[in-house]
Amino acid sequence: MESLGFEIVKECGSARVGKLKTAHGVYETPIFMPVGTNANVKLMRSEDLKEIGVGILLGNSYHLAVRPGLEVIELHGGLHQFMNWDGAILTDSGGFQVFSLKKLIKISDEGVLITSPVDGSKIFLTPELSMKIQRTLNSDIVMVLDHCPSPADGYKEVLEATKRTYRWALKCLKEGVQKHQLLFAIAQGGTYEDLRIESAKSLSELPFDGFAIGGLSLGEEYEKTLYMSEVSVSCLPKHKPRYFMGGGSPALIVRLVEIGVDMFDSVFPTRLARHGTALTWEGRLNVKASRYKMDKRPIDEKCSCKVCRNYTRSYIHHLIDREETLGGILLTYHNLYFMMDFMKRLRESILQGTFGSFKEEVLKAYEKDNV
Amino acid sequence: MESLGFEIVKECGSARVGKLKTAHGVYETPIFMPVGTNANVKLMRSEDLKEIGVGILLGNSYHLAVRPGLEVIELHGGLHQFMNWDGAILTDSGGFQVFSLKKLIKISDEGVLITSPVDGSKIFLTPELSMKIQRTLNSDIVMVLDHCPSPADGYKEVLEATKRTYRWALKCLKEGVQKHQLLFAIAQGGTYEDLRIESAKSLSELPFDGFAIGGLSLGEEYEKTLYMSEVSVSCLPKHKPRYFMGGGSPALIVRLVEIGVDMFDSVFPTRLARHGTALTWEGRLNVKASRYKMDKRPIDEKCSCKVCRNYTRSYIHHLIDREETLGGILLTYHNLYFMMDFMKRLRESILQGTFGSFKEEVLKAYEKDNV
Ligand SMILES: [Zn+2]
Ligand SMILES: [Zn+2]
Repeated sequence: MESLGFEIVKECGSARVGKLKTAHGVYETPIFMPVGTNANVKLMRSEDLKEIGVGILLGNSYHLAVRPGLEVIELHGGLHQFMNWDGAILTDSGGFQVFSLKKLIKISDEGVLITSPVDGSKIFLTPELSMKIQRTLNSDIVMVLDHCPSPADGYKEVLEATKRTYRWALKCLKEGVQKHQLLFAIAQGGTYEDLRIESAKSLSELPFDGFAIGGLSLGEEYEKTLYMSEVSVSCLPKHKPRYFMGGGSPALIVRLVEIGVDMFDSVFPTRLARHGTALTWEGRLNVKASRYKMDKRPIDEKCSCKVCRNYTRSYIHHLIDREETLGGILLTYHNLYFMMDFMKRLRESILQGTFGSFKEEVLKAYEKDNV
Repeated sequence: MESLGFEIVKECGSARVGKLKTAHGVYETPIFMPVGTNANVKLMRSEDLKEIGVGILLGNSYHLAVRPGLEVIELHGGLHQFMNWDGAILTDSGGFQVFSLKKLIKISDEGVLITSPVDGSKIFLTPELSMKIQRTLNSDIVMVLDHCPSPADGYKEVLEATKRTYRWALKCLKEGVQKHQLLFAIAQGGTYEDLRIESAKSLSELPFDGFAIGGLSLGEEYEKTLYMSEVSVSCLPKHKPRYFMGGGSPALIVRLVEIGVDMFDSVFPTRLARHGTALTWEGRLNVKASRYKMDKRPIDEKCSCKVCRNYTRSYIHHLIDREETLGGILLTYHNLYFMMDFMKRLRESILQGTFGSFKEEVLKAYEKDNV
């Protein structure tokens, strides 16, 4: 466990390839992390994720603490064993629920009172409790509890959220994690440049293992997402990993890698798959469209995944048309494989100094869709 | 292709182990065949089915002719290529729709006019057209078009259906199949002993490659299912395979194998899985029950499938509780694996002359649930 942490391997402008060393393996960055909210990535078995080459999975502390409850996870010895995943796991703190469950939360300086939308049960989530939950989950990367404001909030609310996020980060640091866990802070600041600077700068002075950019990709304009990210990154320490929370379209990823972001998570590829859309090197492909009914080609002729080797667009179109879940299963597998392949080629382009032309290629195929 | 057909390897009472030689492999009987109505077994990729050891899959001519339509299957060169399945396929004729879509059909001596519940389109399915469809699907085992009455029908209707089934069988035989396809007749007769005898006897005189027992397991009493099957089997030729249509619980299978049935199909294991129930060597296990919340054991301690090696009851209980489809995926995999394992042990018991005690063991675990 001696060498946990982050190391930059190669830079190309502000873009960089790094190595993130966790208790469950060393992973090359920039990395895309699929989301597994209820201890599973929808429609994927852990064997599938392994086969696809997924390295780090996202888990959700708050949801898991409500269901199945920590006693069930503890019985298995942690989240890894519970879901049969021997790669790394990053757990969010529950802070995102401050944004997503707005009507069901009550926030104060001590913490957040969250009413579960599942069963109405209440949890008073404090920075200390969030650390305790994540120690029990035994994730490899722990996120501090933060106060994530909404893009609709005014300056005063965002200022307050930003200050609270800092105070809570201090408390999380004091409460601590297990020694094989990494602890990441979360920079907030909404869409206010001065607050973004203030948040990232003040957190940077604290001994965190990594820094996230939170509170973006929540409905604000695409240009704002990019600009606020750039402002935040410019204030973060260079030699620590930077994680953009909740964004993961190919276009957004290349834009953010360009300014020095290392880690991404999103439900984007898995959710699109369940709605019948595939990611390809030519852009999105809406497999539901009737023009694919008689198309014998694989989803993506440039993809060598199991689905593209074995099934035609015509077959998957048929499954989706008949509302057979297998359609979503096959597309989820392909889309995650595509994301892993995409990140691999992205890293190679940085290593080879050709990131610029890689970026242009990706933007051509994807930027029309924005985020 | 020289040696297509059936061969009895070993008998134990009326139970027998046989070899069914198809254009896509030789399969040991008694065999259980999973159902893949829309060119897929729900939630399973063809690779999963292969890994589980599935030999013959069931396809549905009528549904496939409506969607995706024969031109799509033809484009792929047949149903095998369309769904990426290199094992054998048995296709039903569309005759079962006479029963299942009762209100949407109009039957005459020439054939059945079926109105699609999917899109309202009409197909006039004749014995000749059913053969043509199944030639295009290029299945390994083709079923004749039959008239399947309902258990509620009176003697007169069943008599008529039985006679029509015979006349249609003659037409199917005349229309013919491809030379690498096997053609099976279907014995009807409802729950009338004399009609069962008449139907099975008259069809037996015709040169079919195998004989099915149809029109049972449709809601009639369990004892009637067994008795009518016995009556039918007793009139069928010994050296041809006997296929019981639409039944596949472990208890029913051992009861019917005991009287000499060789082939089974049912949505039973896959449908139960999607409803949260596992098949085990101790009987059914309702994984949804709260007593499994803290149960770290695998679904079945006697099962060596991938799911039982990797996941706990507690984890699968959690997935089902959170309505995550992965719960159904894992249980479907296990249940089909269980059925394959079950049939393997059943065949071994016949080969070793211990079928009697195997049967008792299975009935103890399963007959309480009946069918
Ligand atoms: Zn692919
Ligand atoms: Zn199993």
